[in-house]
Amino acid sequence: MEIDYTNIKVIGFDADDTLWVNETYFRDAELEFAKLLAPYETVNKIDQELLKRQIENLPLYGYGIKGFILSMVEIALELSNNSISNTTVEAILNIGKDMLNKPVDLLEGVEKVLYELSKDYRLIVVTKGDLLDQERKLEKSGLLDYFHHIEILSDKQEKNYSKLLNHLDIKPSEFLMIGNSLKSDILPLVNIKAHAIHIPFHTTWIHEQIVTNTYDSKKYKIMTSLLDVLPLLNKNPKT
Amino acid sequence: MEIDYTNIKVIGFDADDTLWVNETYFRDAELEFAKLLAPYETVNKIDQELLKRQIENLPLYGYGIKGFILSMVEIALELSNNSISNTTVEAILNIGKDMLNKPVDLLEGVEKVLYELSKDYRLIVVTKGDLLDQERKLEKSGLLDYFHHIEILSDKQEKNYSKLLNHLDIKPSEFLMIGNSLKSDILPLVNIKAHAIHIPFHTTWIHEQIVTNTYDSKKYKIMTSLLDVLPLLNKNPKT
Repeated sequence: MEIDYTNIKVIGFDADDTLWVNETYFRDAELEFAKLLAPYETVNKIDQELLKRQIENLPLYGYGIKGFILSMVEIALELSNNSISNTTVEAILNIGKDMLNKPVDLLEGVEKVLYELSKDYRLIVVTKGDLLDQERKLEKSGLLDYFHHIEILSDKQEKNYSKLLNHLDIKPSEFLMIGNSLKSDILPLVNIKAHAIHIPFHTTWIHEQIVTNTYDSKKYKIMTSLLDVLPLLNKNPKT
Repeated sequence: MEIDYTNIKVIGFDADDTLWVNETYFRDAELEFAKLLAPYETVNKIDQELLKRQIENLPLYGYGIKGFILSMVEIALELSNNSISNTTVEAILNIGKDMLNKPVDLLEGVEKVLYELSKDYRLIVVTKGDLLDQERKLEKSGLLDYFHHIEILSDKQEKNYSKLLNHLDIKPSEFLMIGNSLKSDILPLVNIKAHAIHIPFHTTWIHEQIVTNTYDSKKYKIMTSLLDVLPLLNKNPKT
């Protein structure tokens, strides 16, 4: 059975790696970090330890660049057996500052899609992570005018989405979420009977990866580009 | 002329140092930090440099503990001329982790006041800072059920408040803000013609301090305890 999108009133967009590049900057930062620690460990070990520490620190630091920097400093101290130089600590802090100052690089078709969909739907951003980081990126993106509402969550679980729909005063069947993370943008929505379209980014953080074949992919669509959603959601196909 | 509170429908509460202790933990952390750096500089110089760096880093790191930790590490490297030991860096990170794990210590009368006012008003929290930190403190506080809405802002300027009132669909004259910071909780509200009650905490971060005598204190009230607001706002004085 085809999914019916005719009831949809509000479309939520994830931000990082859905509207603009994000994960790529983390991968670049990890490479730089591994170079700094090259005297002490293999790249592979450094990557593994940093990932493990980030996940351990999530309940305390949350998502975002500042927690990432702090985790890098912790791992540098540990993997070097407390023999890292002060200049290396400084270099790690600078990796973080460079990340915070990165330009916002929009993904293909984002402006066209927002422009078209904003004619027929209320568009919102639903992102997780650091409040200031996400606000800064939205400002830099030049996309703010397309959105009726910006929701920045500390995590994207079913309960967070249910609360949001309640707050927006809409039914799950009237809401469509578009995002790159199956775990954060798609499955929680499917579970609360809202709609979701998955547009994978070429890189996904391992913590966001999930085994998919236990889920019924008939309940949501997968597309390769944001531009593919237009024919599906265009209410005036002739215009 | 007496201020007229009869139109008020929604009351906003600042969180840190209005509902619970916060600034005290920062002061304690600064003392610990100064002890770690005692071999290099006087307490006074360390305090001054840390404050300066925090303010410089605000646009990048925002308010909150993670940015505070990162600023402490930067200052430790600088004041020691890059000669600080790895164990000191570790100790600084641990000061931060201890802060994040602190219990939530409610201020005098908070529960009574929220209980009473929730009978006649919609109560909301309007706080700034780190999203995860603030959510965690609200959870720990046990106060969540009193609030219709939680708004965590990256900054508390007039435009942030105007947007919030717009979003809540209420007029400035229907909103009262209660908080400890003249700069963040009181003056922006007075300027947009909403109501505000100032309840100073015994400690205020220098960055939040402001010269008050240029402002007309007839436009807002100052009280010494949250409990003092009850007689003013109680709609059923006999019950």
